[in-house]
Amino acid sequence: MDRTRLYRDGVLVKENFPIDDISECVGDPGAVVWFDLCEPAGGDLAKISEELGLHELAVEDALHDRQRPKVDAYDGHLFITVYAAGLVDGEIDFVELSLFVTRNALVTVRSSADFDIDAVLRRWDADPEMARYGVAYLLHGLLDHIVDGYFEVLQPLDDRVEALEDELFDGGVTDLRGRHRETFTLRKNLLRFRRMALPVREVVGGLIRRGAEVIDPALMPYYQDVYDHTLRASEWTDSLRELVGNIREAYQNQQGFKLNEIMKKVTSWAAIIAVPTLITGFYGQNVPYPGSGEPIGFWSSTILIIVGGVLLYRAFKKRDWL
Amino acid sequence: MDRTRLYRDGVLVKENFPIDDISECVGDPGAVVWFDLCEPAGGDLAKISEELGLHELAVEDALHDRQRPKVDAYDGHLFITVYAAGLVDGEIDFVELSLFVTRNALVTVRSSADFDIDAVLRRWDADPEMARYGVAYLLHGLLDHIVDGYFEVLQPLDDRVEALEDELFDGGVTDLRGRHRETFTLRKNLLRFRRMALPVREVVGGLIRRGAEVIDPALMPYYQDVYDHTLRASEWTDSLRELVGNIREAYQNQQGFKLNEIMKKVTSWAAIIAVPTLITGFYGQNVPYPGSGEPIGFWSSTILIIVGGVLLYRAFKKRDWL
Amino acid sequence: MDRTRLYRDGVLVKENFPIDDISECVGDPGAVVWFDLCEPAGGDLAKISEELGLHELAVEDALHDRQRPKVDAYDGHLFITVYAAGLVDGEIDFVELSLFVTRNALVTVRSSADFDIDAVLRRWDADPEMARYGVAYLLHGLLDHIVDGYFEVLQPLDDRVEALEDELFDGGVTDLRGRHRETFTLRKNLLRFRRMALPVREVVGGLIRRGAEVIDPALMPYYQDVYDHTLRASEWTDSLRELVGNIREAYQNQQGFKLNEIMKKVTSWAAIIAVPTLITGFYGQNVPYPGSGEPIGFWSSTILIIVGGVLLYRAFKKRDWL
Amino acid sequence: MDRTRLYRDGVLVKENFPIDDISECVGDPGAVVWFDLCEPAGGDLAKISEELGLHELAVEDALHDRQRPKVDAYDGHLFITVYAAGLVDGEIDFVELSLFVTRNALVTVRSSADFDIDAVLRRWDADPEMARYGVAYLLHGLLDHIVDGYFEVLQPLDDRVEALEDELFDGGVTDLRGRHRETFTLRKNLLRFRRMALPVREVVGGLIRRGAEVIDPALMPYYQDVYDHTLRASEWTDSLRELVGNIREAYQNQQGFKLNEIMKKVTSWAAIIAVPTLITGFYGQNVPYPGSGEPIGFWSSTILIIVGGVLLYRAFKKRDWL
Amino acid sequence: MDRTRLYRDGVLVKENFPIDDISECVGDPGAVVWFDLCEPAGGDLAKISEELGLHELAVEDALHDRQRPKVDAYDGHLFITVYAAGLVDGEIDFVELSLFVTRNALVTVRSSADFDIDAVLRRWDADPEMARYGVAYLLHGLLDHIVDGYFEVLQPLDDRVEALEDELFDGGVTDLRGRHRETFTLRKNLLRFRRMALPVREVVGGLIRRGAEVIDPALMPYYQDVYDHTLRASEWTDSLRELVGNIREAYQNQQGFKLNEIMKKVTSWAAIIAVPTLITGFYGQNVPYPGSGEPIGFWSSTILIIVGGVLLYRAFKKRDWL
Repeated sequence: MDRTRLYRDGVLVKENFPIDDISECVGDPGAVVWFDLCEPAGGDLAKISEELGLHELAVEDALHDRQRPKVDAYDGHLFITVYAAGLVDGEIDFVELSLFVTRNALVTVRSSADFDIDAVLRRWDADPEMARYGVAYLLHGLLDHIVDGYFEVLQPLDDRVEALEDELFDGGVTDLRGRHRETFTLRKNLLRFRRMALPVREVVGGLIRRGAEVIDPALMPYYQDVYDHTLRASEWTDSLRELVGNIREAYQNQQGFKLNEIMKKVTSWAAIIAVPTLITGFYGQNVPYPGSGEPIGFWSSTILIIVGGVLLYRAFKKRDWL
Repeated sequence: MDRTRLYRDGVLVKENFPIDDISECVGDPGAVVWFDLCEPAGGDLAKISEELGLHELAVEDALHDRQRPKVDAYDGHLFITVYAAGLVDGEIDFVELSLFVTRNALVTVRSSADFDIDAVLRRWDADPEMARYGVAYLLHGLLDHIVDGYFEVLQPLDDRVEALEDELFDGGVTDLRGRHRETFTLRKNLLRFRRMALPVREVVGGLIRRGAEVIDPALMPYYQDVYDHTLRASEWTDSLRELVGNIREAYQNQQGFKLNEIMKKVTSWAAIIAVPTLITGFYGQNVPYPGSGEPIGFWSSTILIIVGGVLLYRAFKKRDWL
Repeated sequence: MDRTRLYRDGVLVKENFPIDDISECVGDPGAVVWFDLCEPAGGDLAKISEELGLHELAVEDALHDRQRPKVDAYDGHLFITVYAAGLVDGEIDFVELSLFVTRNALVTVRSSADFDIDAVLRRWDADPEMARYGVAYLLHGLLDHIVDGYFEVLQPLDDRVEALEDELFDGGVTDLRGRHRETFTLRKNLLRFRRMALPVREVVGGLIRRGAEVIDPALMPYYQDVYDHTLRASEWTDSLRELVGNIREAYQNQQGFKLNEIMKKVTSWAAIIAVPTLITGFYGQNVPYPGSGEPIGFWSSTILIIVGGVLLYRAFKKRDWL
Repeated sequence: MDRTRLYRDGVLVKENFPIDDISECVGDPGAVVWFDLCEPAGGDLAKISEELGLHELAVEDALHDRQRPKVDAYDGHLFITVYAAGLVDGEIDFVELSLFVTRNALVTVRSSADFDIDAVLRRWDADPEMARYGVAYLLHGLLDHIVDGYFEVLQPLDDRVEALEDELFDGGVTDLRGRHRETFTLRKNLLRFRRMALPVREVVGGLIRRGAEVIDPALMPYYQDVYDHTLRASEWTDSLRELVGNIREAYQNQQGFKLNEIMKKVTSWAAIIAVPTLITGFYGQNVPYPGSGEPIGFWSSTILIIVGGVLLYRAFKKRDWL
Repeated sequence: MDRTRLYRDGVLVKENFPIDDISECVGDPGAVVWFDLCEPAGGDLAKISEELGLHELAVEDALHDRQRPKVDAYDGHLFITVYAAGLVDGEIDFVELSLFVTRNALVTVRSSADFDIDAVLRRWDADPEMARYGVAYLLHGLLDHIVDGYFEVLQPLDDRVEALEDELFDGGVTDLRGRHRETFTLRKNLLRFRRMALPVREVVGGLIRRGAEVIDPALMPYYQDVYDHTLRASEWTDSLRELVGNIREAYQNQQGFKLNEIMKKVTSWAAIIAVPTLITGFYGQNVPYPGSGEPIGFWSSTILIIVGGVLLYRAFKKRDWL
């Protein structure tokens, strides 16, 4: 599964050669090499690390999961951790990528095969001219692909937020509980996204601040462009979080309204029925009330029941209790 | 629909000439040209881009929607993205504008025909003297118009907030649900406005920081004035958001009060009716209670019913339960 | 209504002369002039503007309402916008003041006659010695008066907050709705106050940062003192907002408590009455139950009613439901 | 009540001499004097002010209450305002202290006799060696005492918070209303404490930033230590505020739980009683229903009542409604 | 219990010698010593303090509990306070550590024996090569161990948060009250953790800023690594706090939903029963209503009861009230 590439003077000369050929590539001053390790067991990385002179702390970080997105500068190389994001069944899925950047080599260590490395290759090959900028170009293509992936995560979340907003007041939302669950999940995903993906902003910013030492001036606008996209992703995320908060509060209000309505109606009907019940109770007494045992009693009782019920109904209706 | 203008030594000499004439205009050192493209398909922009030496990344951004408001400095030109705002049926409508600013050319790319470019032309022509400041003057007129548009969006929102505040306690608000919906929509609009329109503050601030390189010192107070207006729009928006939050909480409280009132009254009435019902139940028993089958029974029952009901009514009234 | 003053070498030599005399005053290097315009139509301000060389943008801002509090530096003069605050019927009332500050002239433009300019004059005249510091002294007196006015607004609000706090738990607050309204209004006023009045802190801070260019070193402690007062007003406002928030939440809790209490009691009473009603229902059946039509039936029914009611009452009382 | 002290070359030579002797002390270059005024009427302070050359604005501030905690630098002296805090009946009590610091004199003006100045004297005398550092040592002792007082205020508040936390879930809290009141008072006190006491952090920080001009380098660690304590007090306060917020929300939830429980139980019982009542109503009809007037009717009615009641009870119990 | 170690030229030469031997160790320029005091009474610390020239304020802080995490620079040594964290029965337990760092000595003062100092020794001995970096290496091993301990606290909290999230919507959570309690405890623990443990970030950052003066350049990446871990712990904590807040709100909503459901159902059933009760009341009147005393009366009553009940049941069901 591990991929390799060798560029010489800006031209791709060899691909998918064994990692053991590393020594001959690294010695060549005009060569730029790329090694890709997917869930490495340690052996290959140890070999690469020795040849390229990678710092032991960086190698250790690359083999352990759950690092923070960051750029660490070691003597002779940079170590970068970033997260690629994808949407799987409405949940955001992250793949951790550890990158070693030397003057003429890029090593990518992926924590899972879920990251589509072929898409990065296609991007690199789309503009072969640019390969003359060496490692900085390869790194740009990779970061650009990762950040573009963020938008593919945010767009469906944004669509869902907009759909929730539209549903809120148009037509009757019956499944309030399901909506509530969805809002909870949206919020959880945005929280995780903000924690895992957005610090890439600092990573790209850190590379830009390092300037010509790492990035050819001609590439600088391209890195600025990636940085700009990370800002946009960040602002979009914050904006979505606020909108989800707004929706959540609206649903809470709706829940309150619905309870009010139902309680009002049911209790009011119970009160309306209580009055005729009282009247029949009166006429059911075993005492000689006016009309007891006589038709006039039946009529007066029936009239009282109907008039009382109607009056109450209208009084409640008027006060909007029914 | 595309508009063009050519100024020479501060005087408007040609208008609405075809974009193909671009080469002759650009070569002239005393000339200042303006091109306006509305929803460009790409061809015209490619031509302009070639003549003015615009960076491919900037051109790409101009053709794609949903950029962040920003100023990007490329070699030989600035690239600016801003959003104009308008109110359509109570919802804020945004038009994205991409601007290329070179030493003697301004290119405006509009994402939709909804932006009233003629109003900008009228503003430019209102003070023809100023045209001698070239591109910086044209840019100022455009930004000033956009920021003035923000106030035309904020004023009706402010009026609505004030109306909601006044309604809150004066007279009976019956349509709490509609009010709640309005508050939700207000808040959503303010959130979107803050995200799309307010970063123009950074844009104008960025131009001012670039100083004499871009803006003639004589024009600086005018840019400061625009900047000041962006600050005012920003503070106004934040203030409206807080007021809307205040109102939203007040409505929630009102909803709670209303439920309390109704539940209290209805339940209390049900309790008041329960007592006479118990009494009639007592007198309806088929046992020889005192007064069963005798007028005294009727009178005692009736008196108990009336006295019990009245006492309860007064007790409840006194405790403010009714 | 427009006021004028002419100081020469620190001595007040002329007062309330017509604004048309402006040219002779301004030419004199030892003279310090003050012009006050109340709701100016434009003519007088145009004349002053021409003589003092005021920038057209500043003049325009002075004639339009609703500027942000700010200090703008123009070539040869400062332009200041501040708001004076007063309390009218529990609502904060603002008066916008636009100030032009040149080396030897102060122009004050008031948006309404509600601002008590005579109080400022009395302050100036209280320490005639200081008039030798010219414009900076006059400006200090004006700002000091405005900031003192803020405390006269905050003190009654603070008193009201303290009263609300005391009422919260001492004795029974019956008019929860009125309290809620008051809290809402307090909060609205504090929000508006923070927006309109508090930026004066930045204004005074801006003047101090400009230093000796504007303010004589001997006056610096006096400006520091005003600055300090603006900080105090700002902290007081924030503190009041937090206290009002605390009260608002406490009232919401009280509202919840009150509802709980009432619902508990009323529902519990209804439940207590339901049991004797059931018993009378039993004894009202037209079936030969034990004791039907016999005195023993009456006694057993009555005993059951009383015992059942009392037992329920005590059970409910014990669980604090009544 | 006013106290005075005169140190010469680091040795306490005179105590409690009349303030009128001020001139002879101040003239002596090797002397360090301390004057303490408690609720001064003005006369003594005027005399001291004249001798030490205190600025009129500082003197005015010292005579007026409710200044912000601050350090103001005047020509030849510093003016400091700080608040000492103490706990009286669970409410925080503040004493405002105004301090004038010259090269060889410290003047303390107390707004109330509640501040225990003798404790400060004991602290000064505990390490007589240090008195050779003059005014800076005296000032350190005073500030250290004030900040230590803050911890004596925070500790009981912290204990109360912990007690409230423990009570929350252990055993049944019956007096929810009292707890709510306590939470409200805790929060109010923490708000006031933060406003009045914590800015002392800025005061001590300001003194440290002024450096050797005010504080002998050998004393610097001692001021750093006080600064550190102010930070600790500040962090403690913020932490307590968050914990109180957490408790407040937990009580609100508990209140909701309790209402739910009661309403559920009471309403469910009412529903259970309604069914037998219906049955007795059926058997109370004056129509020839099966078993009317016969023993079989009595038995069927009684069985229906018991079975219906038991079934309902078990159904409700199963759904956790009872 | 007190531990000691003596390194000479990077080699461990002596261990657990009495603290009284301190003088001979300290005099040796090639020696690095470590003293560990557990809950010291004062005597040993006084001896060490005298030999190493520790500042009296630092020694005092080391003997008093509840200091803030910090680095204080004294003349000739640093004083560091940090907290180690562990999880005991779901509650976070803290151990305060005071560290004195001189050029060639490290003194650790532990407030409790709960801190596993042997684990630190094992870490030191795991890489004996590194001991040549002296005190900075020892300090790194200690800080690294403490920060690793934070993750052992955060991981179970994170697991619990995830479990709570999963339980929220999957299956029926019956013990809402227990969940609520757990959420409260989680939040309290995170609050305390943030206050006590996270400031270690500033401590490590402060050491790094001091640079080569304290840390050998070769060790710098190792300190950077620890710093990075403190950042990760800090971000993790904040993220957990937000997730717990999200869960808490979801539980509140669930509580609301559950109440709504129950109230709706119970009240609706009460209303359904009220109608047949009214009908039986009608037929129980002692008046000659149609069918009184006749079979037709029984049938009409029975049909009315059944039809009325069924109609109501279906109407309520349709409106989702049942």
